[in-house]
Amino acid sequence: MEVKYGEIKVIGFDADDTLWVNETYFREAEQKFARLLSHYETENKIDQELFKMEIKNLDLYGYGIKGFVLSMIESAIDLSNGKITTATISEILHLGKEMISKPVELLDGVEEVLHTLSDKYRLIVLTKGDLLDQERKMERSGLTEYFHHIEVLSDKKEDNYRNLLEHLEIKPEEFLMVGNSLKSDVLPIVNIGAHAVHVPFHTTWIHEMVKEDENNGGYRTINNIREILNFL
Amino acid sequence: MEVKYGEIKVIGFDADDTLWVNETYFREAEQKFARLLSHYETENKIDQELFKMEIKNLDLYGYGIKGFVLSMIESAIDLSNGKITTATISEILHLGKEMISKPVELLDGVEEVLHTLSDKYRLIVLTKGDLLDQERKMERSGLTEYFHHIEVLSDKKEDNYRNLLEHLEIKPEEFLMVGNSLKSDVLPIVNIGAHAVHVPFHTTWIHEMVKEDENNGGYRTINNIREILNFL
Repeated sequence: MEVKYGEIKVIGFDADDTLWVNETYFREAEQKFARLLSHYETENKIDQELFKMEIKNLDLYGYGIKGFVLSMIESAIDLSNGKITTATISEILHLGKEMISKPVELLDGVEEVLHTLSDKYRLIVLTKGDLLDQERKMERSGLTEYFHHIEVLSDKKEDNYRNLLEHLEIKPEEFLMVGNSLKSDVLPIVNIGAHAVHVPFHTTWIHEMVKEDENNGGYRTINNIREILNFL
Repeated sequence: MEVKYGEIKVIGFDADDTLWVNETYFREAEQKFARLLSHYETENKIDQELFKMEIKNLDLYGYGIKGFVLSMIESAIDLSNGKITTATISEILHLGKEMISKPVELLDGVEEVLHTLSDKYRLIVLTKGDLLDQERKMERSGLTEYFHHIEVLSDKKEDNYRNLLEHLEIKPEEFLMVGNSLKSDVLPIVNIGAHAVHVPFHTTWIHEMVKEDENNGGYRTINNIREILNFL
């Protein structure tokens, strides 16, 4: 498949783990949570049960730190058979507040790429999660000036993207999405006929990259966001 | 002040307590919360302390049900000096899930007004709160077809509205905001030179309305959203 990038007008960037570090903070919180509950269960069991609880609550709570904290509390009560102390629940609440207050750590190359592309394209941020979390991070990131606006989607499925393009009044082929998640940022975009660039976040995902055929998949995979400047 | 509505292109509607009932559900939850904690304090004290906690956490949690639930849990631990049982915390979590799952109850006249105006204006929903909550309510309301899109703002201050108009590429005088909150939907709108219509939600606010001078205040107050059709 020959990809024509010439018609692109708007570029959407995923935020968490594409522009700045995020997942790392959730992993750290999960580790602290497992230590808080280490009287009751093994770390492995705690991890598994918390994950199940998050999935169970996802329809109700959506993405973001607040829903994660509510799931941690519910999970802590379950895992301890109701024996968890209120002191530990307070620590879980504190863990959540710490996460919300984290500084924003930009990924390598991000500022250079945005600076270069913002002259030529309309750049927007497309993220899911708590609106307040995301706006706060955007403000702290110092990247606000490069973006036309920020769109916080409740999910990143084909319909969400279709609604977005309708709202932006552009055709799929005029839109390029850049993100770290195949599932959320790349595949639904390819399915609606728009362009996508995959920038994996975790170094462990590099092995997976080799198996992707960037020409047949309808999207391109790059190692560092800077490589985007080679073809745009 | 003579108000010219002829130049209006876009009408923004607040959602909670303007299109559908919301505040009532928070009041009900507060009453249930007070009953859950009735061993520890008077209802009045519990109300006051929960409110203080919500205000204390507002910068971190923002608006919406999830932040409200986290504040209820924190407040329950404080009010009981850590003696609250995990069973009660589970009930608080359950209270929150009930709130999230509530049906949407449209206010009188809303559907007729949106139906009539959607032919002539671009209608958008402007709300603050959890994105997922708001999208869910919009879907359940059956009103989606009338709106061009929904914008969930992290707050409703002058700057949020200025950014919105910039993003919509319209001038202040081309925008009309309709909402139940003087503080969030009306005064900041008047301050940036756009139009506003105030539709108070609570019957107890009717007394307050009498004191408002709609001509000097730069906005108009109506009793029922239907009255908007008299001048638009």
